[in-house]
Amino acid sequence: MAGRAPREADDRRFMAAAIRLSRRHRGLTGTNPSVATLIVADGRIVGRGVTALGGRPHAETQALEEAGPRARGATAYVTLEPCAHHGRTPPCAEALVAAGVRRVVGAASDPDPRVSGGGYAILRAAGIEVRENVLAEAAADMLRGYLTRAVRRRPEVILKLALSADGKIGIAGRGQVPITGPVARRQVHMMRAEVDAILVGIGTALADDPALTCRLPGLEARSPARIVLDRRLRLPTDGKLARSAHEVPLLLAAEGAAAPQRRAALAACGAEFLAVEAPGGRIALPELMEDLAARGVSSLMVEGGALTAQSFLAEGLVDRLSLFVGPGEIGPQGIASPVGPGNIPAGFGKRREDRFGEDVHFEYVRA
Amino acid sequence: MAGRAPREADDRRFMAAAIRLSRRHRGLTGTNPSVATLIVADGRIVGRGVTALGGRPHAETQALEEAGPRARGATAYVTLEPCAHHGRTPPCAEALVAAGVRRVVGAASDPDPRVSGGGYAILRAAGIEVRENVLAEAAADMLRGYLTRAVRRRPEVILKLALSADGKIGIAGRGQVPITGPVARRQVHMMRAEVDAILVGIGTALADDPALTCRLPGLEARSPARIVLDRRLRLPTDGKLARSAHEVPLLLAAEGAAAPQRRAALAACGAEFLAVEAPGGRIALPELMEDLAARGVSSLMVEGGALTAQSFLAEGLVDRLSLFVGPGEIGPQGIASPVGPGNIPAGFGKRREDRFGEDVHFEYVRA
Repeated sequence: MAGRAPREADDRRFMAAAIRLSRRHRGLTGTNPSVATLIVADGRIVGRGVTALGGRPHAETQALEEAGPRARGATAYVTLEPCAHHGRTPPCAEALVAAGVRRVVGAASDPDPRVSGGGYAILRAAGIEVRENVLAEAAADMLRGYLTRAVRRRPEVILKLALSADGKIGIAGRGQVPITGPVARRQVHMMRAEVDAILVGIGTALADDPALTCRLPGLEARSPARIVLDRRLRLPTDGKLARSAHEVPLLLAAEGAAAPQRRAALAACGAEFLAVEAPGGRIALPELMEDLAARGVSSLMVEGGALTAQSFLAEGLVDRLSLFVGPGEIGPQGIASPVGPGNIPAGFGKRREDRFGEDVHFEYVRA
Repeated sequence: MAGRAPREADDRRFMAAAIRLSRRHRGLTGTNPSVATLIVADGRIVGRGVTALGGRPHAETQALEEAGPRARGATAYVTLEPCAHHGRTPPCAEALVAAGVRRVVGAASDPDPRVSGGGYAILRAAGIEVRENVLAEAAADMLRGYLTRAVRRRPEVILKLALSADGKIGIAGRGQVPITGPVARRQVHMMRAEVDAILVGIGTALADDPALTCRLPGLEARSPARIVLDRRLRLPTDGKLARSAHEVPLLLAAEGAAAPQRRAALAACGAEFLAVEAPGGRIALPELMEDLAARGVSSLMVEGGALTAQSFLAEGLVDRLSLFVGPGEIGPQGIASPVGPGNIPAGFGKRREDRFGEDVHFEYVRA
């Protein structure tokens, strides 16, 4: 039952399929990364697994379970190095050994100091042929939240902005101004479903009264936590954010001594609080990012407004820029965006350009 | 304005005061440890700080603010090595340098790889006299949750049990049996206020219908998260735990595929879920502890029942045993405790023995 002789093209093809599968539970695996495993015997997939909702069981466990005895002599494709540290369940590297897998093809390596090469070492010590770094970049891209948190001790930060054709993000005092169409808005809701948290400044929360939930049919339960930079606790208790705090987590980044009575009223709504320092009246964002990472947040989408976007950019905290540009113009009375397709900060490279209905989406990634 | 010549007895006296102060916010500083700083000039305390609620600002910032210009030439007592990593606020080690402190006396060292000696190094490089490890053990004892999470990547686990004089913890099928008196129960509620989470097995949750909140006057808001080992989601929605889930967090450690309808009903109550693996029908506790640490939980009190206590002991996950022994006997029909003052697992040493009303409290710590 040994597998066919491995071939470069097969490895890339199966790994690409594994990476696609790994996307399924992005944003839904808690503090564990969403990874996938395929077990391939005689050129056919006999087992597949993706990190379960909440983060356990791991992908390998499920793929080996599905494969059963067919795993013996097969090749396993893993989008992240299998874990090597013992709990009560054996580490995934040992599970692959026990199942009699003959060959393991890996994509990304795990920077967790308890794994970091140890997973591959266990496999090699057992006589398993290991090939590393197949489509490593594509896998790392899918795992970028987990990797950013492990290496930089902060979440991956995606700055998302909707811009008019003349580079404006809204009109002062006018609340939410429609800039992009329904197709682009659906795409934004899909992006929300894949991150651990969304963040806006209090100005945007007050002006727009946004809900910041994922409202795609069937994905409502995938709404991530909402965070508002609200140093002095000005968020009203009767807005959409506070009223939905019992259903979808709401975290207010506030100074500890701010407005004790409003704090109590917001707490009664179900809001939680993140203590921040705000020297000079501006919230210390690197410290806030560090605290979010320590709470398990791996990916954060910043949704505005201009001042908040500018602060994240100025602190060097943005990893990815996601710009949706609509066809209409707002005119000189509009609020200018701190960035735009013609004005991208140094160090960012364009990753893709897509069309959503009438709107164009540009994505830039920090090198 | 230079301080008096330092003296060994002074150092110990001021550090002891700092360690007492650091206790004030235990369990209330999120993912940051509760530490304290005293600034002493000419033998008098001129500034004091303790990590603020939620974890920021840090103790040093507040102590230096209170001391103002009197910090110049003074001695700073810090219960944990000052932080050395940059965010937008300067690291505390640099703040001490900038304030012109002449001497720093430290207790515990910080195992965080971004600090780990770096805080003291910044001070010494600036010509500040540093004395380390004064009352280091007492400070580490106060910081044990933070240190356990940093070093072992799991929370500190305190196993608390109430035993009758004949070593029983209850009677099967009889719900909560009063074993200890009101003074001991108040002490348990105080202990709850100082941990990040409390855990019970589903058997105890079903039999006793406990609320597991801190019900001391003035400390109601200090109730930590409640966790139930509830693999198959058997917790009723009309019990005290589920009914209070909108006020005090309730986390159910359950298998991902368990009872989707009950999951939806419990989610509507405000419960959250921790995905667990349960090979052979028993929840994998080391993995669960790892996931809790990744979510920021540094200290966990396990409150029963016998099976859950036994599981934590068998996995080697208990750091501290806290036994409250009442004066009454339950008799042979009682459920035997897996441990007792006459039956302490190897590796534990008695730390203290106190009387609370009619009851005796024994505390044992793993060496």
